[in-house]
Amino acid sequence: MSTVPARNARAIAHLQQLLGDRLSLSQAVREQHGRDESWHPAHAPDAVAFPQSTEEVAAIVKLCAEHAMPVIAFGTGTSLEGHVAALFGGLCLDMTRMNQVVRVNAADLDVTVQPGITRKALNEYLRDTGLFFPIDPGADASLGGMTATRASGTNAVRYGTMRENVLSLTVVLADGRIIRTARRARKSAAGYDLTRLFVGSEGTLGVITEITLRLYGIPEAISSAVCSFTSIGGAVNSVITTIQSGIPVARIELLDEVQVDAINRYSGLSYPLQPTLFLEFHGTAAGVREQAEMVQAIAAEQGGSGFQWATKPEERSKLWQARHDAAYANKALRPNAGLWATDVCVPISRLAECILETKKDIAESGVLAPLVGHVGDGNFHLTLVFDAGDPAEMAAVEALNDRLVMRALAMEGTCTGEHGVGTGKMKFLQAEHGDAVAVMRQIKKALDPQNLMNPGKMVAL
Amino acid sequence: MSTVPARNARAIAHLQQLLGDRLSLSQAVREQHGRDESWHPAHAPDAVAFPQSTEEVAAIVKLCAEHAMPVIAFGTGTSLEGHVAALFGGLCLDMTRMNQVVRVNAADLDVTVQPGITRKALNEYLRDTGLFFPIDPGADASLGGMTATRASGTNAVRYGTMRENVLSLTVVLADGRIIRTARRARKSAAGYDLTRLFVGSEGTLGVITEITLRLYGIPEAISSAVCSFTSIGGAVNSVITTIQSGIPVARIELLDEVQVDAINRYSGLSYPLQPTLFLEFHGTAAGVREQAEMVQAIAAEQGGSGFQWATKPEERSKLWQARHDAAYANKALRPNAGLWATDVCVPISRLAECILETKKDIAESGVLAPLVGHVGDGNFHLTLVFDAGDPAEMAAVEALNDRLVMRALAMEGTCTGEHGVGTGKMKFLQAEHGDAVAVMRQIKKALDPQNLMNPGKMVAL
Repeated sequence: MSTVPARNARAIAHLQQLLGDRLSLSQAVREQHGRDESWHPAHAPDAVAFPQSTEEVAAIVKLCAEHAMPVIAFGTGTSLEGHVAALFGGLCLDMTRMNQVVRVNAADLDVTVQPGITRKALNEYLRDTGLFFPIDPGADASLGGMTATRASGTNAVRYGTMRENVLSLTVVLADGRIIRTARRARKSAAGYDLTRLFVGSEGTLGVITEITLRLYGIPEAISSAVCSFTSIGGAVNSVITTIQSGIPVARIELLDEVQVDAINRYSGLSYPLQPTLFLEFHGTAAGVREQAEMVQAIAAEQGGSGFQWATKPEERSKLWQARHDAAYANKALRPNAGLWATDVCVPISRLAECILETKKDIAESGVLAPLVGHVGDGNFHLTLVFDAGDPAEMAAVEALNDRLVMRALAMEGTCTGEHGVGTGKMKFLQAEHGDAVAVMRQIKKALDPQNLMNPGKMVAL
Repeated sequence: MSTVPARNARAIAHLQQLLGDRLSLSQAVREQHGRDESWHPAHAPDAVAFPQSTEEVAAIVKLCAEHAMPVIAFGTGTSLEGHVAALFGGLCLDMTRMNQVVRVNAADLDVTVQPGITRKALNEYLRDTGLFFPIDPGADASLGGMTATRASGTNAVRYGTMRENVLSLTVVLADGRIIRTARRARKSAAGYDLTRLFVGSEGTLGVITEITLRLYGIPEAISSAVCSFTSIGGAVNSVITTIQSGIPVARIELLDEVQVDAINRYSGLSYPLQPTLFLEFHGTAAGVREQAEMVQAIAAEQGGSGFQWATKPEERSKLWQARHDAAYANKALRPNAGLWATDVCVPISRLAECILETKKDIAESGVLAPLVGHVGDGNFHLTLVFDAGDPAEMAAVEALNDRLVMRALAMEGTCTGEHGVGTGKMKFLQAEHGDAVAVMRQIKKALDPQNLMNPGKMVAL
């Protein structure tokens, strides 16, 4: 504890009184909470609290405000841009004990949850209602973390991102005040859209303690498919035509031949080493059939062939497992290597060009970099595989990422489609937003004048 | 000009140099710009400017900031809560000369427009592209006004509101800085969601000078229908079941028997004097047929009958004309009467109860109040018909509206689903949002410290 500032030590003494054994100072617990799944350096907080209610979070935050102690909310630690690192020490709020479903409103297709529940646990809970929550960022992340980072994933093309699927939030502000950002009505024009302001704010404006989410009826029919293409351009053009035709595809995921190779090896599969689309259709039985036929016809014109279909749940799971295993497959490519996930998103008309230029750049750099993409949204990820101990490799990977981001920005895209800013993307924010960053800073200062809410992330003060 | 504060007079002199004859001080022009379509009192601005570019708006706003002169943006003047009244005098920015389509990106399904273009002009412009912009608030409003008030309308149930359909904005801030709130990518996790902060901010945080909007392919098939019900509850329950079943209905509008009577009289029609749903389905020919069959089966179980279908464009237009003429039909009910449009929105599970309690209240009040509803969203409007010169009637209408809003709030609803706050709903904001109003005020103060952007609207400082 020698590095804890005196004011934090005083705050911790008060917090111990408040929380008892729900405040941990153990080194192992602290270190676990200063680290996410990225390559970004870990920074352990001075203490970790395990609050049980909104009121308790408010009391904790108030106490921290009095002692100018930073506060960092933590869900499952699956963020990818250093979001949870305690750069200036302070208190980590581990939200996992606030993991209850508060209320399901089946008739309104909504649910209110505490932030610590994970998306899989929520869908498990909902199983008997015939409803589901669609957003799937890959990791079994907490809904609080998904809200804070504006997460999306494979089926955002149909169901939107967390931006579109959060109806209302309870938030503890930097001074301990508790607010509700909106009522439960589906739409409202009553005042500034505070819900959307906190969605994607990465804990820098307040701590989310309750979330009301939209739900959807489980589709009557679901059909999945895999299709190989002779070129990346053909695959991307199929996606563009599909979207333009208004076909409400639920998932449309691109894997390049490098990624296909990795999952073939990892999962013992034998997909052709070609750009490949994984697709899913949701709807009525007739509707799904019609969508599938339309997309198959579109793909055929773009060099797509070898459609493999799956409609039974176990077949669909098996098909998608390969896509979901991409992260593990990439880890297995090179033992002990670091993985750096890029996250640009561009207007879909520029997607093929962006991917092709990037693949050329990858080839020149010599970096191993399988590609997966939520291509219906114009969003794709490279997994840059590198030896973190080799400065030359590290520099090559960083340069590749820099060029990728600047290429995306030049195409009117964004440095991050869904992972968020954290510390990793801060250096690109000015290039992306220009003077709008100053407005973000004004808002941050107005709502967190002491700069205690996840300080050092997103906007530099 | 005798009532113009000295500092405004000085600002006007500078503006005249800047704008020449694009600055009007004429009484008629000023009075026209201080009034919207509501019963709220008009307040003429001191002058009206007709800017032609973002840069010119920035120069004007900067000048106004230097002289502490209020700035109020104006589109078509079709707002319903006193949004454009110059409560403290100042400059009205008439945006109608900034009415160009800047760029259509057909492959990306988006378009960038200046704020003065109206939704009908935009769709006229898009006609040859096979694309359309769906949001339809009834009036042929400007896109700037629709963005500023977070408008929606009849097909929000399928396509969302302005919140979901604005991708990015150019905004002139209170000090004349110009920002772009987002890139053109479909999704982004790069920083605070400034786009959504300005959508619905009613000109109180800045002036919107460019808007990038989502577009949609014109559906292959469109089918419309009208169906009468034996009870309001049956009509609303049909809507709930339709939504829960995931049927992607494009429009589902309720008219009560009072409203049906009014449009029958106005448009020479003979719909049964019963609660009535107007519906529309968009999709493939087969998809539309399937949706229609499913909804017809749902309605039949809830006392719905006498379905009239229209698929040809001219038949559909005729069918919807009746719905769109509701406002005129209501005006014709009582010559020279005032019309007060209410706008609550509740979770759909409470909608039938809210409507039934409200109709009982209407009956007791003796006020004439036809009802139309965007019932798929839980949003409905009463048109309260009253003699503005009769204090007793005015009081009865106001009391009816107050009770309606408080009833909606008690049901976790909102005082305004789509009309916005303006001055008319300010008194309900605290009841709806509690301490969150203080956060709105903090944001307003941070971005407009002199309180010059449409002052006196939405949040009181």
